[in-house]
Amino acid sequence: MTDLSPLAPAGFPELPPIAGLQLATFAAGIRYEARADLFLAEMAEGTTVAGTFTQSLCPSAPVDWCRRILAEGDGTARAMVCNSGNANAFTGKAGETAAALTAEVIGEALGIDPERVYLASTGVIGETLPEDALRNGLPALAGQLDNANRESWAAAAAAIRTTDTFPKGASARIPGTAAHIAGIAKGSGMIAPDMATMLAFVFTDLGVAPDILQIALSRSVALSFNRITVDSDTSTSDTVLMFATGEQIDDEITSTDDERYPGFQAALDGVLLDLAHQIVRDGEGATKFVEVHVSGAASDDAAEKIAFSIGNSPLVKTALAAADANWGRIVMAVGKAGQAADRDQLAIWIGPEQAAANGVQHANYSEERATAHLQEQEVRIHADVGVGTGAATIWTCDLTHGYIEINAGYRS
Amino acid sequence: MTDLSPLAPAGFPELPPIAGLQLATFAAGIRYEARADLFLAEMAEGTTVAGTFTQSLCPSAPVDWCRRILAEGDGTARAMVCNSGNANAFTGKAGETAAALTAEVIGEALGIDPERVYLASTGVIGETLPEDALRNGLPALAGQLDNANRESWAAAAAAIRTTDTFPKGASARIPGTAAHIAGIAKGSGMIAPDMATMLAFVFTDLGVAPDILQIALSRSVALSFNRITVDSDTSTSDTVLMFATGEQIDDEITSTDDERYPGFQAALDGVLLDLAHQIVRDGEGATKFVEVHVSGAASDDAAEKIAFSIGNSPLVKTALAAADANWGRIVMAVGKAGQAADRDQLAIWIGPEQAAANGVQHANYSEERATAHLQEQEVRIHADVGVGTGAATIWTCDLTHGYIEINAGYRS
Repeated sequence: MTDLSPLAPAGFPELPPIAGLQLATFAAGIRYEARADLFLAEMAEGTTVAGTFTQSLCPSAPVDWCRRILAEGDGTARAMVCNSGNANAFTGKAGETAAALTAEVIGEALGIDPERVYLASTGVIGETLPEDALRNGLPALAGQLDNANRESWAAAAAAIRTTDTFPKGASARIPGTAAHIAGIAKGSGMIAPDMATMLAFVFTDLGVAPDILQIALSRSVALSFNRITVDSDTSTSDTVLMFATGEQIDDEITSTDDERYPGFQAALDGVLLDLAHQIVRDGEGATKFVEVHVSGAASDDAAEKIAFSIGNSPLVKTALAAADANWGRIVMAVGKAGQAADRDQLAIWIGPEQAAANGVQHANYSEERATAHLQEQEVRIHADVGVGTGAATIWTCDLTHGYIEINAGYRS
Repeated sequence: MTDLSPLAPAGFPELPPIAGLQLATFAAGIRYEARADLFLAEMAEGTTVAGTFTQSLCPSAPVDWCRRILAEGDGTARAMVCNSGNANAFTGKAGETAAALTAEVIGEALGIDPERVYLASTGVIGETLPEDALRNGLPALAGQLDNANRESWAAAAAAIRTTDTFPKGASARIPGTAAHIAGIAKGSGMIAPDMATMLAFVFTDLGVAPDILQIALSRSVALSFNRITVDSDTSTSDTVLMFATGEQIDDEITSTDDERYPGFQAALDGVLLDLAHQIVRDGEGATKFVEVHVSGAASDDAAEKIAFSIGNSPLVKTALAAADANWGRIVMAVGKAGQAADRDQLAIWIGPEQAAANGVQHANYSEERATAHLQEQEVRIHADVGVGTGAATIWTCDLTHGYIEINAGYRS
């Protein structure tokens, strides 16, 4: 087991109850010894659902399952199940069968329609989920259901981990209401196919119509989980699921014009960004949490591409690891991004220190001050590319010997 | 200084004379102590020229210079100068002035038009080339000109190095003729902006009209230098220049229908691929030379994108470093490439060993045999994505602690 990330928060947060939500965990022995590897959430009748999934063209069987039931269903859900240790990806027909079996056994245990049971798996790929463990483990799991509370939230966040060095949770109260949003996530490499898939499960007891829930979730994901990178890799299993029980406030939001919508969106943005940042803080081998801000781009989309070009560059990330104020590597990353940039207007800041202006080193640049900033655990890079008003912020971590150690040694 | 790459060839090859070509090197003390840092090639009157340059939108001053004179000129060249130690990139007006000065001083020393003097620089960025070193060093450099021969080729290949652990050269005789192609290159990280830019300078004494030379060079570069990756980064200075003196055979190739053209193209392809492979073999921290072949794609272009997705994936590259036959990471890289692939038709080979077929692990797969292949220095990965007939091959190296060591420690 890898040591706790130096960027980990002080502890797991206290997550609030969500009316209409019950949680359970169970150790089914799918891959790990002596730890819970199954997580179940049961939601009240009428709960709405929304989801976003990996862009991988080789998605896992649970991703296929969720996409199908989300498209074919009526926008409601009754349960979700996640197992850790086995991704059920690249498993062909056997994978489909295992996914359907999971939904069926849970459906039977809870007396609900299997087509309203959402699934997620994370772990090694290319291995079939053991049918015995499912047939025995899932009913036992269903027997453990308890209200969502401090302890059951913490147990759930722990059960879905793979290479994570700490469990991840976040919550918010929806402004002007008695309803809450609470969620858990896992992810460490961004994103390894075998053990470091990014998963997040988010719940609210505010009533939200399914189409509005999907709009809100997609918006938040675009600015949070889709704005982080550890190593530029993308899992076959990345999944964000959101459920709205409506059990605290059953007067549904049915339009983005609803006066409660902006507060709901803001609270959701906050919860997902918090979870996304925790994933970066648990980046494999990470010793620094890095914010990359790009301004002056032709569009926000162009700014995001440039920011990712910086945040994914191995040369930038190794320089950050060494607290080396090598801003030439940032110029390189801007240049290779393939987006409009004016070399002779380019400006670069390392933390508060301006390194470059108008395409040359800034007259007052102090490498010493830039280095001092880079020696901190929280680092900011800002590049203004001088062609427009587009801007974006992404978050990443540094690239260290630890990353090589974890990924060159993991399976063996 | 970094140790010699374990993948280095036995020694520098013996490169042939090229009629009409003279070479010189000189230690001008631009950055390095006690080693040559200037390289000059003088070509006979009537020599034709072609070039390909970095796609970076923040190109160096010498790249701007070459692009301009190539576009404005008549397709002929008389000299080229390369300095190592300073990239003359992100240097604004001062950089333009230094480039023009270099061409002017060499033009004066050799009695030729500065607009026919091509330039390349490699080294740290953001620092102005010292004018004194140029004014003193360049005339001394011009005084060292000697015929291209075994010794002067080796000295030239050594003078253009930065972080390279060995000098790189390759040559071929053009089939059915008495003419040759010979070239030198430098590059190690692919491609760091400060000290590891990819440069290649190629010469032939066959006469080739400029437009045909450009066609041949662009074709060869697409299949060689544009098919390699060490770390996915792209320099501000990448440059390939080719010169045809016509001094061995002055009957110019003026059409791709010339019966000599296919032989010329094949010889050029061989020389550039050899140089490109040498750059991968000198990849920072590399311990394995890796060929990635993708077949069954929708097009050759799609196959190339998928191959680069595999070859650039940090998770694939760290697995290769550890000789870990973790083929799930190859599935991941295929999935994230954004190109059509049929998960349920996907087949993967590690060397001769088939790991996956029809979207699941191959029935006869032996992880032991796959691991044995990965323990060799030359590794082959093949993925067939099952949707068409497009194919492409790229070359890369593994990602090791050595890469982190070199790049996290370089400047400090």
